[in-house]
Amino acid sequence: MAESKITIPKDISPAVIKRLPRYYRYLGELKEHDVSRISSKELSQRMQVTASQIRQDLNNFGGFGQQGYGYNVEYLYTEIGKILGLDKVNNMIIVGAGNLGQALANYHFEPNGFRVLGLFDVNPRLVGLTVRGVEIYDIDTLEEFIHTHDIKIAVLTLPKQTASDMAKSMVEWGIKAFWNFAPVDLKLPKDIMVENVHLAESLMTLSYRIRSNNE
Amino acid sequence: MAESKITIPKDISPAVIKRLPRYYRYLGELKEHDVSRISSKELSQRMQVTASQIRQDLNNFGGFGQQGYGYNVEYLYTEIGKILGLDKVNNMIIVGAGNLGQALANYHFEPNGFRVLGLFDVNPRLVGLTVRGVEIYDIDTLEEFIHTHDIKIAVLTLPKQTASDMAKSMVEWGIKAFWNFAPVDLKLPKDIMVENVHLAESLMTLSYRIRSNNE
Repeated sequence: MAESKITIPKDISPAVIKRLPRYYRYLGELKEHDVSRISSKELSQRMQVTASQIRQDLNNFGGFGQQGYGYNVEYLYTEIGKILGLDKVNNMIIVGAGNLGQALANYHFEPNGFRVLGLFDVNPRLVGLTVRGVEIYDIDTLEEFIHTHDIKIAVLTLPKQTASDMAKSMVEWGIKAFWNFAPVDLKLPKDIMVENVHLAESLMTLSYRIRSNNE
Repeated sequence: MAESKITIPKDISPAVIKRLPRYYRYLGELKEHDVSRISSKELSQRMQVTASQIRQDLNNFGGFGQQGYGYNVEYLYTEIGKILGLDKVNNMIIVGAGNLGQALANYHFEPNGFRVLGLFDVNPRLVGLTVRGVEIYDIDTLEEFIHTHDIKIAVLTLPKQTASDMAKSMVEWGIKAFWNFAPVDLKLPKDIMVENVHLAESLMTLSYRIRSNNE
């Protein structure tokens, strides 16, 4: 791509990908505190991962450090941002304008490269309201909206009963990626990307640990 | 514990623990559809994991299947629920009654063994409101509330600027476990349990995949 000189290899492991946003967060904090450079050792102490893991992770993308100098914080932050695709704005919609959908619409996702263009719901009492300047539309208008605005990304905050069928329809209408909060495993074509946030399961993991700790 | 005959070994790997809630969810759905038993092969096809992984995972807790019969759905669901500590109710509080805190207060966590006793916020316009029957209290009353109600678990939905310091205070007041939605890594004593839900990082992972898919 013209706006970036970084080559992103196809075979980056999911574990590395999961760690990138955390590097990005720490570098953002360093930047806020006007730290201009940092050694991999210092960064590793802050992040509580080994310095060699940091070096290995970043070497996947060509490495960004200089021996004896460390990392340039601003530069590394910007480059990791590009790797994460945060230098471009992705338009998305939120399907399901209940409490969670509305809470997500209120989130400041723009710094992360995402902009919410609309919320959708079946509930006529919600349709026409706005959340942080974004309108809630009737879900019957969803297909047209996806086409008109060329939407590729959807946040799914529907109940589990309707989430799977709606996701399948949305794939037919052109959606390529879901940020899924419904407590279901969406069964969709292989080229469709799904990132799950299963809240109840996260809480159960905590419950397990509380229970096993009390034994 | 008297109410359960299951022994939970101390050395269960985090990967197994992460998978238990998903078993629980699938078994719950089977139960809803009046399926009374299922072979590990069938279950593995539905869940898209190998049958041997299912057997291995469950064998950590003594195993629940009978050769040639498969798993009793109701029994396995109940037992995994006990392993996850869902047979007891954990009282918890939500600290930070913004959109996300309120959305979480609206969640039906009771079936997962959690009950929200109060929300807390600094914002005087929120204090005194109720969300799904649960009151929003002034954060100045938090310490006393934790003591009076013997609260051990807190949902942290504060901004990152205040989350770390508040979490430290809450540990002094008796909190033992955090379900943390603030975009920070809480640095707390080793015996304090933290389960993180880093929403922005989850979305960045999706962004990465969208970007690298479009190259």
